[in-house]
Amino acid sequence: MTTHVRIVGVGLIGASLGIALSDNGFRVSLEDPSPTAVRLARDLRAGEIADEVTDEVTGAPDVVVVAAPPDVAAKAVVAALGRWPDAVVTDVASVKEAVLVDVLDSGADSSRYVGSHPMAGRERSGTAAARGDLFDGRAWVVVPHEGSTDAAIKRVREIATAVGSAVRIMPAHEHDEAVAAVSHVPQLAASIVAACLRELPESAVGLAGQGLRDVTRIAASDPRLWTQILAGNAPAVRDVLRQVRDQVDDVVAALDALVDAGGEGSLGTLSRVLEAGNLGHARIPGKHGAAPAAYEVVSVIVPDEPGSLGRLFGDMGHAGINLEDLHLEHGLGQAVGVAELSVVPASVEPLRAELTRLGWRLHD
Amino acid sequence: MTTHVRIVGVGLIGASLGIALSDNGFRVSLEDPSPTAVRLARDLRAGEIADEVTDEVTGAPDVVVVAAPPDVAAKAVVAALGRWPDAVVTDVASVKEAVLVDVLDSGADSSRYVGSHPMAGRERSGTAAARGDLFDGRAWVVVPHEGSTDAAIKRVREIATAVGSAVRIMPAHEHDEAVAAVSHVPQLAASIVAACLRELPESAVGLAGQGLRDVTRIAASDPRLWTQILAGNAPAVRDVLRQVRDQVDDVVAALDALVDAGGEGSLGTLSRVLEAGNLGHARIPGKHGAAPAAYEVVSVIVPDEPGSLGRLFGDMGHAGINLEDLHLEHGLGQAVGVAELSVVPASVEPLRAELTRLGWRLHD
Repeated sequence: MTTHVRIVGVGLIGASLGIALSDNGFRVSLEDPSPTAVRLARDLRAGEIADEVTDEVTGAPDVVVVAAPPDVAAKAVVAALGRWPDAVVTDVASVKEAVLVDVLDSGADSSRYVGSHPMAGRERSGTAAARGDLFDGRAWVVVPHEGSTDAAIKRVREIATAVGSAVRIMPAHEHDEAVAAVSHVPQLAASIVAACLRELPESAVGLAGQGLRDVTRIAASDPRLWTQILAGNAPAVRDVLRQVRDQVDDVVAALDALVDAGGEGSLGTLSRVLEAGNLGHARIPGKHGAAPAAYEVVSVIVPDEPGSLGRLFGDMGHAGINLEDLHLEHGLGQAVGVAELSVVPASVEPLRAELTRLGWRLHD
Repeated sequence: MTTHVRIVGVGLIGASLGIALSDNGFRVSLEDPSPTAVRLARDLRAGEIADEVTDEVTGAPDVVVVAAPPDVAAKAVVAALGRWPDAVVTDVASVKEAVLVDVLDSGADSSRYVGSHPMAGRERSGTAAARGDLFDGRAWVVVPHEGSTDAAIKRVREIATAVGSAVRIMPAHEHDEAVAAVSHVPQLAASIVAACLRELPESAVGLAGQGLRDVTRIAASDPRLWTQILAGNAPAVRDVLRQVRDQVDDVVAALDALVDAGGEGSLGTLSRVLEAGNLGHARIPGKHGAAPAAYEVVSVIVPDEPGSLGRLFGDMGHAGINLEDLHLEHGLGQAVGVAELSVVPASVEPLRAELTRLGWRLHD
């Protein structure tokens, strides 16, 4: 039987989820305080517009996904639990402990409630930015509480899996601490760095390069939404932000010493902060959630002749060596490039020997 | 006559410049303390290896580009001014005032020295990462001093222009203040945010999304190089970093108030920081240095049928309306998308009327 999902709130997340679920054979009905938004979502094929008439036809939903702003999420969850006494209810708010506490305090039948947080978002918000592949390959945190039934957890997992996400089960407080470091403080850092550009002369902002664009991309995010998220996760965000402040203080002190005094030990402080950044950055897993593996790189010069890259892969294949990753350093219109072949450490020497024998030029 | 450029130092910037200049008809000779690096650069077609034999053949260079690490740049510039008494000498160090002071203090003929800073880089460094299109479409800051001759300035402009960069003329102190805000403090922010990931449990870093990846991409940069850059621009970096610290302090205080007290006024503080980030982010010019223009957006629903986007552009063309920018919201495999058409404000109403008349469905 087709699962019927009611989506309450058709902003970026709700409308994207509607598109993805509709594409995957779910029956989706949509509601939102804004009639314009719900019509746009319908036009984007996120689902049918829910009203009393369709409710009579379709019956009650099996699952309700509350995709409302964080500060009204708990209230909408409680309302849904009361309105549909057999439905499993989840929400997608970025902060989970605060929603859970309110739901448990409400006296509603919370055994049918399981929190969610799809780790998918964009610097743009609103229905028009919706896209069906938003959740594809992303983590979807499923946050059961002690009273959640297994059946309810299974329903929510089913939805996350259907839209291509990888499910991670995590208690609410653990989730909130994690996102403080991997999402909420990075948002603040981007906003604060971007804020420093406000008063710069035009000639100075004209020097912006790709590094600045990347660091500040999410500074374009919706301040109203993010104020709610940060306030909803205040204790955990504060803990991480204090670490940031301590490091900023250290660097300011080192720069002070360089400017005002001889700067003894200052270079060591700067270097330590930058190296700590290297180490932290290296912990971020690959795009599809795979842990970064300890491969080694063999660099090969590839001439820009027809078929030379194909010949290289053919030669590797004949050598029986598995390519784990490939990075091509090859500028547009550039005559020669470097192919960086990642292989398991045990394959490095055999690969180097074989490629050299076949006339390839290697570089360290 | 072919211009002969000597590149001193073939790391990422030097080797990339060699490739780009060679591609554009310059004669390029290369030197570097590392024989391995200079051979790799030669293999990447960045130029010929300079030695006494080739110097006899090619004669002295017309222009010397010092692409050495920042802490030895001034010394290499002074050496080049002495070694080739007719050559124009420039350097590419990311900090300009410190290099200039040392060159002026050296007693060398500084009239032939003009500083440079191509605003091009990558989170990767070293010769193997070189690419000929590194400077294409980027800003190249040319930093003359009071004694620089017009002929010397012209030579350096010629090189920047040849590799596709847009030249910006700026005094050294103005350059250093600008890059503190658009490059050096963003680097520190990325490193510090990434550093907070070091101690996280595996399950927490597993939640990393695209926002974190973007904010921390440049945290993978070379700590040795960046220690030199930050130390070389200590006064200007310190000034901007103090602004960052003040904002971090404000946010920590607001979160403290939310956690420990009623949080009166705290949401206002959070919201102000996020809004300031919006404003600063909006000042970053487009990829090719164009100022962000005040266009208005008309959103059109585009069905995923063959030729529907082409039909839309045809209809716009017939209406005589110029498309300034286009943003397609269309997920992979998604049936329907939204096309956001940016036009000058005066065209909004005519465009909406014409598209509606032709049967397109518009959305606000």
